[in-house]
Amino acid sequence: MDKTSFGYRAWFQPTGSFSTFSGGKYALFAEEEFQRGHVELFGEDKKGVSFEINKNLPAEGFSITGDATTAKVEGGCESGLLYGAYRLLFALRRGEQTFTINDKPAVPLRILNHWDNGDGSVERGYSGDSLFWRNGMVGYDLPRLRDYARLLASVGINQISVNNVNVRLLTAKLLTDEGLNDLEKVAEVFRPFGIKLLISVHFDSPVWLGGLKTSDPADPKVADFWNEAAARVYKRIPDLGGFLVKADSEFQSGPNAFGHTQDVGANVIARALKPHGGTLHWRCFIYNCLQDWRDTVTDRPKAAYDTFFPIDGKFDDNVILQVKYGPSDFQVREPNSPLLGAMKATRESLEFQIAQEYTGQQKDMYSWAVQWEEIFDQPFNETRATRDLVGKEIEAVVAVSNTGNDENWCGHLMSQSNLYAFGRMAWNPALTAKEVTEEWTSLTFGKSDIVADGVDSAVTKMLLDSRHVYEKYNAPLGICWMVYVHHHYGPSPDGYEYAKWGTYHRADHKAIGVDRTRKGTGYTAQYQPYVRDLYENLDTCPEEMVLYFHRLPYDYKLSDGRTMIQYIYDTHFEGVEGVEGFIRTWESLKSKLPDEAYAHVRKRLDMQLDNAKEWRDVINSYFYRKSNIGDEKGRRIYI
Amino acid sequence: MDKTSFGYRAWFQPTGSFSTFSGGKYALFAEEEFQRGHVELFGEDKKGVSFEINKNLPAEGFSITGDATTAKVEGGCESGLLYGAYRLLFALRRGEQTFTINDKPAVPLRILNHWDNGDGSVERGYSGDSLFWRNGMVGYDLPRLRDYARLLASVGINQISVNNVNVRLLTAKLLTDEGLNDLEKVAEVFRPFGIKLLISVHFDSPVWLGGLKTSDPADPKVADFWNEAAARVYKRIPDLGGFLVKADSEFQSGPNAFGHTQDVGANVIARALKPHGGTLHWRCFIYNCLQDWRDTVTDRPKAAYDTFFPIDGKFDDNVILQVKYGPSDFQVREPNSPLLGAMKATRESLEFQIAQEYTGQQKDMYSWAVQWEEIFDQPFNETRATRDLVGKEIEAVVAVSNTGNDENWCGHLMSQSNLYAFGRMAWNPALTAKEVTEEWTSLTFGKSDIVADGVDSAVTKMLLDSRHVYEKYNAPLGICWMVYVHHHYGPSPDGYEYAKWGTYHRADHKAIGVDRTRKGTGYTAQYQPYVRDLYENLDTCPEEMVLYFHRLPYDYKLSDGRTMIQYIYDTHFEGVEGVEGFIRTWESLKSKLPDEAYAHVRKRLDMQLDNAKEWRDVINSYFYRKSNIGDEKGRRIYI
Repeated sequence: MDKTSFGYRAWFQPTGSFSTFSGGKYALFAEEEFQRGHVELFGEDKKGVSFEINKNLPAEGFSITGDATTAKVEGGCESGLLYGAYRLLFALRRGEQTFTINDKPAVPLRILNHWDNGDGSVERGYSGDSLFWRNGMVGYDLPRLRDYARLLASVGINQISVNNVNVRLLTAKLLTDEGLNDLEKVAEVFRPFGIKLLISVHFDSPVWLGGLKTSDPADPKVADFWNEAAARVYKRIPDLGGFLVKADSEFQSGPNAFGHTQDVGANVIARALKPHGGTLHWRCFIYNCLQDWRDTVTDRPKAAYDTFFPIDGKFDDNVILQVKYGPSDFQVREPNSPLLGAMKATRESLEFQIAQEYTGQQKDMYSWAVQWEEIFDQPFNETRATRDLVGKEIEAVVAVSNTGNDENWCGHLMSQSNLYAFGRMAWNPALTAKEVTEEWTSLTFGKSDIVADGVDSAVTKMLLDSRHVYEKYNAPLGICWMVYVHHHYGPSPDGYEYAKWGTYHRADHKAIGVDRTRKGTGYTAQYQPYVRDLYENLDTCPEEMVLYFHRLPYDYKLSDGRTMIQYIYDTHFEGVEGVEGFIRTWESLKSKLPDEAYAHVRKRLDMQLDNAKEWRDVINSYFYRKSNIGDEKGRRIYI
Repeated sequence: MDKTSFGYRAWFQPTGSFSTFSGGKYALFAEEEFQRGHVELFGEDKKGVSFEINKNLPAEGFSITGDATTAKVEGGCESGLLYGAYRLLFALRRGEQTFTINDKPAVPLRILNHWDNGDGSVERGYSGDSLFWRNGMVGYDLPRLRDYARLLASVGINQISVNNVNVRLLTAKLLTDEGLNDLEKVAEVFRPFGIKLLISVHFDSPVWLGGLKTSDPADPKVADFWNEAAARVYKRIPDLGGFLVKADSEFQSGPNAFGHTQDVGANVIARALKPHGGTLHWRCFIYNCLQDWRDTVTDRPKAAYDTFFPIDGKFDDNVILQVKYGPSDFQVREPNSPLLGAMKATRESLEFQIAQEYTGQQKDMYSWAVQWEEIFDQPFNETRATRDLVGKEIEAVVAVSNTGNDENWCGHLMSQSNLYAFGRMAWNPALTAKEVTEEWTSLTFGKSDIVADGVDSAVTKMLLDSRHVYEKYNAPLGICWMVYVHHHYGPSPDGYEYAKWGTYHRADHKAIGVDRTRKGTGYTAQYQPYVRDLYENLDTCPEEMVLYFHRLPYDYKLSDGRTMIQYIYDTHFEGVEGVEGFIRTWESLKSKLPDEAYAHVRKRLDMQLDNAKEWRDVINSYFYRKSNIGDEKGRRIYI
């Protein structure tokens, strides 16, 4: 592990030659971090910068005033001051000379979920093994965790869960004294960076750990178990953020197994956390994962809303329901979940996935920032976009992490931009993809108006294009799920078609898609009326997700006059051409890039090109074989 | 583990109440085994039976003369005598009174391959964990292995490999002194039963175990390694059968990786075995498992013949090439491999699979005996059936085992019939499925003409029907491979269609299948001219495998006038009805069956019914959605 490598340093790239931190002489942690960073970025301490707590500022807010020789950083609390310190470092790295920065987070909780298993593996991890776990021990590499904490804090992330929501025995023990011995040390590492820990707990912990015969939340002994567990944990880690639970989902136990609604299960754990100030994050990813494909009435996207909306108001005030952005599962194109903002008397968080499970698995370049901006843009009703809810009705933004113990943290160097963008857009959902991508690119590769090399603008363009290029060669028009079962990389158009996961497109010789309007499964009725009508009406339904809501024949005419099948062929050829364009751009930058970074990304782009061609040919062939309609332009479709 | 249970006792069921063997007073092992069996079957020693070696008989042959009160068993060697002892036991169990039995095996080597891993798992195992391995140790349960040896010897199996052909580190160590400490004990258990061991070895053992930098068979150090390894093994187990190798296959290393043909790799190991009398079994399951589905020239079934036929005669005389019965992979319907009998100057064995990888995974009832009889029936040329080669050009019959540490050995009680039938048909390929199934049924359930209950004939009929019932609801007309990738249970019609495994049916709106005639991929040219013409000509190609050789439109007329698509629909409905018939038959036998056996099979039949319905509906739906042609009889197809 070369800690001075381009990949490891991520967006803390030095402008000159790398120097080792001399360190440890400043009183405030924020100032210490600033000077450490300054030495690493510029080779020396920075003179003339002052750091001060100013309680008139919002707690996590900060201001930076002055100029490059005499700057003043003030923070509403130590975290705010730390955020200011990093922001000043980044501003200096970008060559800014005078500062009038006033900033504060729009969203109080900016959370990263790690799907890390006790054996060191990472579910949906594409960046090596866990940074936290090895052989059942958490925190085996504390020095690296400290560098990781710095990365996360520098973009404003302030809570992390350290173990997979699919909790197994090795990580269930985090509720025991033995497990807490390790976790306490991890908390100590993250604490000065303003980052609180969360623990994913298993709903059956009362049985697994407490020796009880049931986990029924109505059983007083179960409540006792949770009370004792919470007390035990908070004694050791008083500032723990709380617990995270995946219940009644994909073979996990939950209140439903005991005949209760979700609130009954959540509240018993929430009440145990309450005296300690802890929050319970309760995931809403609940659906029937043993559906019969012959059943055309059940419609998986309806499940979360049907489960939770009727019990709005029944959750304790320290429960936050964690809702995935879309009703399917982190797909490349979905409408937003109708549950977001719908529960007026229940706290909610919005869950993203930085890990590229369905979006190229960090082999393919993919900018989540662009998709997140689109998600924020989606309407909640006639007057408000989803963005307008964030920081208000939706008080937390959560994401599944894309990090692991690869030298460059994220598998693909370009995927670092997604980790960066998540922190920035969770802090301020009004930031555009372009803005945060430019920030990341200029910090990572240097800024053109200083070094005049055009790298930052070229890389920014690649990233901003990457989401739509990927979508072009993927499943078309919001149809989703045309991937190999389980591993989710590569095209398998019928892969889920006859399986039990509730994800069907029902393509036949003439048409494809599921009618989810009120004439069909009725899914659209879960939206606010304005949005419902928008999606129900073919004239107003956003074309890029038209097959999410409608079943349409292959010769359906899209708005530009093309048939749907021709659009499918066209976009799939264009997707491959887009990747070829990325390769040309990247090769044109070769002389201006560090060898390590050039070679690494070049290799990934080759993998992406293979993947894009595979998608193009399989999808085109699949639709040709079904429809018997050829490409108007006579391009090659494998028959 | 109840060693007196119906499942554990398999085809050694007592006629009366079970007695414990008093044992150990007879000089000959065969007599000991006979009396032990007699006590267990009938509750007492048998008087008046004599056992004698008669060197005028063929070595493994035997004769039984006399009657139930004064019988004489003679054997050409100790194994022959043992086979005679078991045969007499079985005859007594079946109520026979006078004996004029003269028998000898038609095939010298009757081999079982265990695909057992060092960690105790079994590749394609559907009967629990390994009988041989646990935590890297072989032979952890020697008493049970002794019972297993008896089962195998009682049907004439005389060699077994004890570890998976996909050798990993834990079992690679069988070539080391440490590994041999365990294996020696296993050999001691099997030796008196006339069963020799084989070891599956990894082609890279010179690197893994010998510390060499290469496994290149042309390197003298590699030859030295194999010589030393063979000497080490034979010092400890002088009667070892030899080694078994899967090379250059499915990511395994092999001579091809070093630029050599297969003979070069095989001969270097064979020469190491030669001084010790050992045989090298070299598998021919070699094909490109990273094929591009767009490539319509490469045709996987051609691979084994293309690899081995040109090097006929180059293998040393202690090498046997192990050829799977079909060119695909243990499918429910394939033509026989054209390699079988084709290599006039090379020794060959025929490989079956008793494990029901593609044939219901021991959840569904499936009689391999019926399929084996059909395989033996397939023509080699105008004058000889494949059966006529067995015991001559094909001097060994091998099968992948279906056994594990489940109480009943085989997962499904009915699957015991396949283990029984394999031994019997490898001994005598002229036996019919009906004959061996009647044997198994009457030994296991008792014989009707004694107990007059009709169970044996009913169960025999179920088994004899089971192969065709399964085939009816499976992929139609020899198309193969419509299964989920990797686990191979359940229908996924396009599961392998765009994958790298070389198994494509290329179904489109109009037609399905690959033209493998000389106008197509040319696969048929690998057969003897008579067989080639038989398969090329639509009028003579066996209809049940017509889609293995031809691409045909859905409206192609079969010999009975039905369209192909209608035949597909009809057979898929009939398949489910067949399983329903099995359930009715089984329920009708309830009062006549041991509770344990009844309940066990009843439960499996329910699983099979679900599986059959899933196949029926998925396959019918798949073809309806592609072809847009409905069922003439208006039955329900899910659209």
